[in-house]
Amino acid sequence: MPTLSKKAAAMPASPIRKLVPYAEEAKRKGVKIYHLNIGQPDIETPKEFINAVKNAEIKVLEYSHSAGNESYRKKLCNYYHKYGIELSHSDIIITCGGSEAIEIAMMTCFNPGDEIIIPEPFYANYNGFSCAADVIVKPIKSSIDNGFALPAISEFEKLIGPKTKGIMICNPGNPTGYLYTENELKNLAELVKKHNLFLLSDEVYREFCYDDKKYISVMHLNNIEDNVILLDSISKRYSACGARIGAMISKNKEVMTAALKFAQARLSPPSYGQIGAEAALDTPQTYFDNVKQEYIARRNFLIEALNKIPGVFCPMPSGAFYCIARLPIDNADKFCQWLLEHFTFNNQTVMLAPATGFYSTTNSGLNEVRLAYVLNLSDLQNAVKCLEEALKVYSGKQI
Amino acid sequence: MPTLSKKAAAMPASPIRKLVPYAEEAKRKGVKIYHLNIGQPDIETPKEFINAVKNAEIKVLEYSHSAGNESYRKKLCNYYHKYGIELSHSDIIITCGGSEAIEIAMMTCFNPGDEIIIPEPFYANYNGFSCAADVIVKPIKSSIDNGFALPAISEFEKLIGPKTKGIMICNPGNPTGYLYTENELKNLAELVKKHNLFLLSDEVYREFCYDDKKYISVMHLNNIEDNVILLDSISKRYSACGARIGAMISKNKEVMTAALKFAQARLSPPSYGQIGAEAALDTPQTYFDNVKQEYIARRNFLIEALNKIPGVFCPMPSGAFYCIARLPIDNADKFCQWLLEHFTFNNQTVMLAPATGFYSTTNSGLNEVRLAYVLNLSDLQNAVKCLEEALKVYSGKQI
Repeated sequence: MPTLSKKAAAMPASPIRKLVPYAEEAKRKGVKIYHLNIGQPDIETPKEFINAVKNAEIKVLEYSHSAGNESYRKKLCNYYHKYGIELSHSDIIITCGGSEAIEIAMMTCFNPGDEIIIPEPFYANYNGFSCAADVIVKPIKSSIDNGFALPAISEFEKLIGPKTKGIMICNPGNPTGYLYTENELKNLAELVKKHNLFLLSDEVYREFCYDDKKYISVMHLNNIEDNVILLDSISKRYSACGARIGAMISKNKEVMTAALKFAQARLSPPSYGQIGAEAALDTPQTYFDNVKQEYIARRNFLIEALNKIPGVFCPMPSGAFYCIARLPIDNADKFCQWLLEHFTFNNQTVMLAPATGFYSTTNSGLNEVRLAYVLNLSDLQNAVKCLEEALKVYSGKQI
Repeated sequence: MPTLSKKAAAMPASPIRKLVPYAEEAKRKGVKIYHLNIGQPDIETPKEFINAVKNAEIKVLEYSHSAGNESYRKKLCNYYHKYGIELSHSDIIITCGGSEAIEIAMMTCFNPGDEIIIPEPFYANYNGFSCAADVIVKPIKSSIDNGFALPAISEFEKLIGPKTKGIMICNPGNPTGYLYTENELKNLAELVKKHNLFLLSDEVYREFCYDDKKYISVMHLNNIEDNVILLDSISKRYSACGARIGAMISKNKEVMTAALKFAQARLSPPSYGQIGAEAALDTPQTYFDNVKQEYIARRNFLIEALNKIPGVFCPMPSGAFYCIARLPIDNADKFCQWLLEHFTFNNQTVMLAPATGFYSTTNSGLNEVRLAYVLNLSDLQNAVKCLEEALKVYSGKQI
């Protein structure tokens, strides 16, 4: 049998999915599981999206333009304009989810062996995309103690070497919920300019910024237009993860010309998703206001409840719908598996994502978990109660 | 400004799309263009597909399983069973089009610098996918004079070296329309086994086999189960190119386990496309019978008409909906551009794909073009008439 590629071996398995067999087994036993482990929102997809797909009169389901339907890209410019991001439709390539935007951006910018600095904890699949593109991730640790603020620029400087080709951030952050300040981003812009790096920014959670804190996009930063690539997705915005519609955006014409060649090779992004996404641009503001209110209520409850549990610390996130909590435990992987395998409270348990999967540095986040507040308040209450009871009896715990 | 990756520079632009600006300019001038240049069928997508999407009751458009909905994969096993291909649903990963199936297969099997042998002319985007995966394509020339039959195994042997890791075929062939014989495939199987290579086979045109010639899949070959990867797509089968639903299939568990890691990183294939594709499995046989009859009528007309034009030779294809014709011209790129830029007949012209784009060897296919018979008979007649008249006046022609 022929041997597989080196990257097939190196490719990380999804840290969250490792627990799935234990969850399935628990379900088979009739245990009710509260899923705080994944970012699959329970929020309804806007009617505008669903109805546009239902009402589409299609005879031949054709390829679209490789960069996505022009009508959609033009209308998207209005959407970004509301956030103070001024684009032409040719600055946008519609992708199959935010995932493909990251893949194409990496292939466009980085050679095998090039290094990209990413503040950790970070979205675990960045590891996978980097591995697929043979790009080396250089993690830079942010700390739960200051809510995962951007590490000092001097720490970035320490990591920058001849192979460094880019910096990647997620803002608002998954898994941290941290929203970068104007000052942090300006410092990052200076650094990127000074070292001639690409700055990739995953901003798929911009609709979810709380407490009147200001969302600053890398597209707002002056003087680094050619360095900046915005990675976007409608998955969370419209609770339409299955649409597989994202976007890769840059003002750098050379980047977009090259990216389009990768986009053309794979022909086109999904047609139905584009139809829904274009229509969803007319979703009334009330939809987002309601969703945001719901997430704020969940967040406020969850963070307060977590911090009330003895030995638990959870900083207040300002964006997205995740938080990372420090628990009085020895090993998050073991604990999360134990929750599914050996623990129940009233025949219920909770599924969490061990934070270890979001760190690239070995043995980091060992006593941290990520919680996605994608369940309604009543379920959240039950979930936290389970966690509280679990921590009382977990034998591996350390206080 | 940071420099782009080497592969961004090396990535080939789509050979067909180079002509698009000339086509757009001709359209602006009011010229009617017959598009024989792309494989976008004019056939209607089955009602089963369209209605399933229309009638889907979706509240939250969620991620699907990373390998695709289990119900769809299970039902797909029945589909393949009809072709004598026995699968379990775990042998299948649903992908975003056939394109993603090729991408994931290449990343799973090949290291940067590994070589893959592909009989040319071949589907031009294989170049793009190879470039993206840093895989080196070693073309092996098939000849229009024997209808693009598989080159002699001895020719393959000449190319096999320490870096050779796989062979890739397309059967029935795009752009050749050639259907490999049982004998050819058995010889290929022996070769693959002998040299311990992966055999990737793109069989997206299996519904389009003519003249009672037998479709043999690489999945039918004995003794090389672990070497074989089937690459598939519903784009042509159901005239549903925009659905972006394909599949990567192998009996090699190690390959599928690794491929799933790549699939998990990008989360899931498009949900609407999967809903349509699953329902389309119930498309009645009459749909395919009618489509096939239509393509046979078009093919028979087109090949006969082409061969009647002085200096033109076009072998009879046995599958897919393409043919490659040799024309009495000096340079297919120049000629195809000239057709759009300088030629009209009754204010009409025809758009063809220069075959040069389907050869990896420089200066090959210079007097060949690919024609996709994706237009109705009456349009095809007009298109051929245009070509005939064009050849009478094309100044660069060589007889």
